[in-house]
Amino acid sequence: MNKVVFGIDVGGTTIKCGFFSDDGELIEKEELPTRKENSGENILPDIAEYIKMTLAMHKKKFTDIAGIGIGVPGAVRDDGTVNKCVNLGWDVVNVPKKLSELLIFPKEKIKAGNDANVAALGEYWKGSGKEYSSIMMVTIGTGVGGGLIIDGKPINGFNGAAAEIGHMPLVDGLDFACNCGKTGCLEQVASATGIARLAGTKNAKEVFDRAKAGDKDMEEVIEKVCSYIGKGLACAAAIADPECFVIGGGVSAAGDYFIDKIKKYYKKQAFHPSIDTAIVKASLLNDAGIYGAAKLAL
Amino acid sequence: MNKVVFGIDVGGTTIKCGFFSDDGELIEKEELPTRKENSGENILPDIAEYIKMTLAMHKKKFTDIAGIGIGVPGAVRDDGTVNKCVNLGWDVVNVPKKLSELLIFPKEKIKAGNDANVAALGEYWKGSGKEYSSIMMVTIGTGVGGGLIIDGKPINGFNGAAAEIGHMPLVDGLDFACNCGKTGCLEQVASATGIARLAGTKNAKEVFDRAKAGDKDMEEVIEKVCSYIGKGLACAAAIADPECFVIGGGVSAAGDYFIDKIKKYYKKQAFHPSIDTAIVKASLLNDAGIYGAAKLAL
Repeated sequence: MNKVVFGIDVGGTTIKCGFFSDDGELIEKEELPTRKENSGENILPDIAEYIKMTLAMHKKKFTDIAGIGIGVPGAVRDDGTVNKCVNLGWDVVNVPKKLSELLIFPKEKIKAGNDANVAALGEYWKGSGKEYSSIMMVTIGTGVGGGLIIDGKPINGFNGAAAEIGHMPLVDGLDFACNCGKTGCLEQVASATGIARLAGTKNAKEVFDRAKAGDKDMEEVIEKVCSYIGKGLACAAAIADPECFVIGGGVSAAGDYFIDKIKKYYKKQAFHPSIDTAIVKASLLNDAGIYGAAKLAL
Repeated sequence: MNKVVFGIDVGGTTIKCGFFSDDGELIEKEELPTRKENSGENILPDIAEYIKMTLAMHKKKFTDIAGIGIGVPGAVRDDGTVNKCVNLGWDVVNVPKKLSELLIFPKEKIKAGNDANVAALGEYWKGSGKEYSSIMMVTIGTGVGGGLIIDGKPINGFNGAAAEIGHMPLVDGLDFACNCGKTGCLEQVASATGIARLAGTKNAKEVFDRAKAGDKDMEEVIEKVCSYIGKGLACAAAIADPECFVIGGGVSAAGDYFIDKIKKYYKKQAFHPSIDTAIVKASLLNDAGIYGAAKLAL
């Protein structure tokens, strides 16, 4: 009998749970609400309960588990300690230790990682990045985040801030601050929020829809946004030089229209050895996190 | 008897040779001219001859060699193959294989790497970077190059172009091209050549000397240059997030005056988790390459 692995992606609203065979086949997935009240004290017990129930339903035992991986929206130290995860209400929580106590399961088999890095690992393992030796995932949604995987290993950075491509100071002339407190971050023009703000529309989807329908003003906004994203990728390539960029997040739903423009501006600005770096759309969408979390534990 | 290791740094003008104990103590160093004529065919034989002579003088045998490391000014594949190194006149050369044949020494114990990455490894091992888990070395000389070391391992990049911080497209409004063919590279304003061009002086040293003596125009140039370097480091930190930046190359001779201004502009532009990343001056100077090459082979 093959072993199984759990991949859990803890978000601010829901906990996505994946139950996998150890060769990476998704057997079943489920979503739980993220109960953030009381400093998020129910989050890990809810996950433990889900794991016990799933094993029972599938007539599996704890000894059948190859590992449990968990992605959380915050910086995670190598030992799995999360330091003040605002999105979950957590103070300092050592995820493997706590979950190990709840499940009476060896903590060495429980791994935790930052959600963006974990999603990148998912795309690298089973998604659009699977043919490449190294990828940088760029998630363009409400914010702009990322994850860097080199030779199968997530690069977290000394401060857990590697692949934070959205906070490169690349935009001159802005007169308002980024969520991070600085001014001039790529995220301020390249996120869904930023795109809508530049265009004066309700949301980024409207900008793309109108641009695709031929609205010149909206086209101009998209060109400007893609020029900045191209610059960001060119800078990222000059530092990490991945084999492939994987573009994910809600805005990537704009598809080839968006990806092709990013490619155009990347090629204009990239250092020549890296000019042919692949730029592809993410394929696992909301499941990238559970795949990556599972891989983390294998 | 302890083993010995050779660290060789091949430059366009001279070949720097270091003879080390295997705990990294420099026993002796020597410089040979780089004979680039006839497609650089003498370079590796000259190195082989130096190694034989040095062993003879110190009454050591080939069996006493722990390894031989070589840094070359070009992209180097994992197997030690150098593909068209213009600075040496080389076409395609597999350095470990060729040197192994010349010395009748196992090629597995001969390692080759890009000179900038090798210098970074030297600073990481025995120089200013030795107290840090990860460093990015930034070499500011005729050009602006760099090397990235994470957990003791050089990160070369898929195209051998990682840590090429000088070719990030960060400068708007330039009307002339970089050596690489693009326009807007950090190197165009931050290299020794770039600094002198901005200031209209003979060389970068004059700009620093006059600025330190109170020349307002020269001070303004230095502020501008350091603002761009600070932006470059902030972008690099948002991608690789090293624990420390090590600033080397000829321009770093300007000392704390220069480093302090870089720090000031870095802190203004860096993403907050990385705002306290150390920025220090390189300490091994021209010996970084031989130290790093030796480490590569250990």
